[in-house]
Amino acid sequence: MVLTNNQIILAERPQGMPDDNTFQFVQAEVAAVQEGQILIKTLYVSVDPYMRGRMENAESYIEPFKVNEVIEGGSIGEVIESNSDQFQVGDVVTGMFGWQEYYVANADEVRPIDPSIAPITTHLGILGMTGLTAYFGLLDIGKPKAGETVVISGAAGSVGSTVGQIAKIQGARVVGIAGSDEKINYLIEDLGFDEGINYRTTDDIRHDLACACPNGVDVYFDNVGGDIADAVMSQLNRYARIPVCGAISTYNQKAPDIGPRVQQTLIKKSALMQGFTIGNYSNRFKEGAQQLGQWLQEGKLTYRETIREGFETIPSAFLDLFRGKNIGKLLVKVADRQYE
Amino acid sequence: MVLTNNQIILAERPQGMPDDNTFQFVQAEVAAVQEGQILIKTLYVSVDPYMRGRMENAESYIEPFKVNEVIEGGSIGEVIESNSDQFQVGDVVTGMFGWQEYYVANADEVRPIDPSIAPITTHLGILGMTGLTAYFGLLDIGKPKAGETVVISGAAGSVGSTVGQIAKIQGARVVGIAGSDEKINYLIEDLGFDEGINYRTTDDIRHDLACACPNGVDVYFDNVGGDIADAVMSQLNRYARIPVCGAISTYNQKAPDIGPRVQQTLIKKSALMQGFTIGNYSNRFKEGAQQLGQWLQEGKLTYRETIREGFETIPSAFLDLFRGKNIGKLLVKVADRQYE
Repeated sequence: MVLTNNQIILAERPQGMPDDNTFQFVQAEVAAVQEGQILIKTLYVSVDPYMRGRMENAESYIEPFKVNEVIEGGSIGEVIESNSDQFQVGDVVTGMFGWQEYYVANADEVRPIDPSIAPITTHLGILGMTGLTAYFGLLDIGKPKAGETVVISGAAGSVGSTVGQIAKIQGARVVGIAGSDEKINYLIEDLGFDEGINYRTTDDIRHDLACACPNGVDVYFDNVGGDIADAVMSQLNRYARIPVCGAISTYNQKAPDIGPRVQQTLIKKSALMQGFTIGNYSNRFKEGAQQLGQWLQEGKLTYRETIREGFETIPSAFLDLFRGKNIGKLLVKVADRQYE
Repeated sequence: MVLTNNQIILAERPQGMPDDNTFQFVQAEVAAVQEGQILIKTLYVSVDPYMRGRMENAESYIEPFKVNEVIEGGSIGEVIESNSDQFQVGDVVTGMFGWQEYYVANADEVRPIDPSIAPITTHLGILGMTGLTAYFGLLDIGKPKAGETVVISGAAGSVGSTVGQIAKIQGARVVGIAGSDEKINYLIEDLGFDEGINYRTTDDIRHDLACACPNGVDVYFDNVGGDIADAVMSQLNRYARIPVCGAISTYNQKAPDIGPRVQQTLIKKSALMQGFTIGNYSNRFKEGAQQLGQWLQEGKLTYRETIREGFETIPSAFLDLFRGKNIGKLLVKVADRQYE
């Protein structure tokens, strides 16, 4: 039986916010599974803000997507055919097989997941890329100390919500910036943040920051860039650290990203800004995943997922990242497990 | 005999470039020298770009100058009267006694200088604040490795010219940006820089940078900020480090300092920007001064001074810092030694 593979390709590079012309649904036949290969049926697809950067034809830390090729991204799937000694039918795996229903992988392209330890979706979130991003960005660059104040933008997202909880574990005062009262409520009530600021409804974010951070800002974990970053930069303490993780507010902006230059602030405060991507820490993933898993088991970390249903919802789910629709990790469920 | 003390006070805070209204020459009587105190006659006065920041009434890493008080700054003087066991008449000392001809100091306010080791003026330059700024900023933040490319703006100034030589000692390729052909010639011929770019005459600084840095930029030692910093930021390599030492191009600017935001660049390149001031390293001054002194003795470091003559030239010397007039350390000689 030849399987039909629904796929989503990059039809054209977006100018500004991606739209109906950006993505195209296509069908292909699934190739034969060669010796050493496995056939994976996609269960969950991850949509992440960094993928917007790969839609640009610009040099970056990761190769641009190619036009007319399947969008690549983190996924979870089930092995439904195996010509590899390393995998059996029914195994759950994760890898970068992207926005398609099936994928023929070489055994070394994917990593097995143990479904008995935690829900498999956590490997796209708190135990996966976004959890590790939070872990290394905060601890390796932000280095919060007990009693210091940590401000997080994009705080209700998958990375931000984990950053805040890890900062609390370190004994810091934690202030989250997010875009709805529901999100702020989640940060404070469910995650134990000390304060939250709704940037969409505030009249004066600098004033709100000053109230929420009476001792100034020691660490600013920046997921959004733009005006919000400018505002937090105005409240830094001496020796502040700024892990620069994302700039989601600017990813779909057509105009050049212009704002106050940071040099004088950095000098006056002897402050540090450091950009990073999770790939920098690949040789320490094991350490990070173990610690995150332990905190999860101990109940010190919690997480939320926003799960959309159906392969056809992937593009709109992706766009919702930029509309602030999700709390926690945003995923699309594509299929149920067959062999559970 | 009562001595008359010529002094320069901050008459008003400047808007933009300081002018004739900013400074005022006044006279005062020199106070009596109490037990434990010494009377110092000023020999040399240092003028430094960071002093412009102290003319603003704004919170910073160092207190603002007060209006109607003597401008404070690094100086060298000779002890002409001593009521302290620690100093004798004829001793040469350095301290922050500022823009005046005489200063009555407590013994712990000044540091003795040994004139037999190196010219005394080096303690305001390569063996003093600017040399230490170069040393710690480059080695502690920039961390150049052999074979890497180091770009320095304000390269012919007191800090920049030292940074470049230390980078050469580390085995780096060194590219200096400065504002005259005479300066570029000095960098390459006298200091051993590999390349120089005259930012005042170039048609396309990005192109010139790309040519001068065929392997990209690993370390950017930023003394100037503004457009030049923007240009260098566009050429960074992955894991680039940017010690942010000064932003002289913006100090006298009335308009807000606006430019391309750096967040996306920092993320794409996993780059680090860190502001600093030399005060951060006060517990390591001895280490720095020893190493600089050793390199100086070994002939691995050289320096140039631009020395103006006469107390009355101090304000114009200070303003010339912002007009790019000086090569190396800019000083004003106020008096000859009496007791040499």
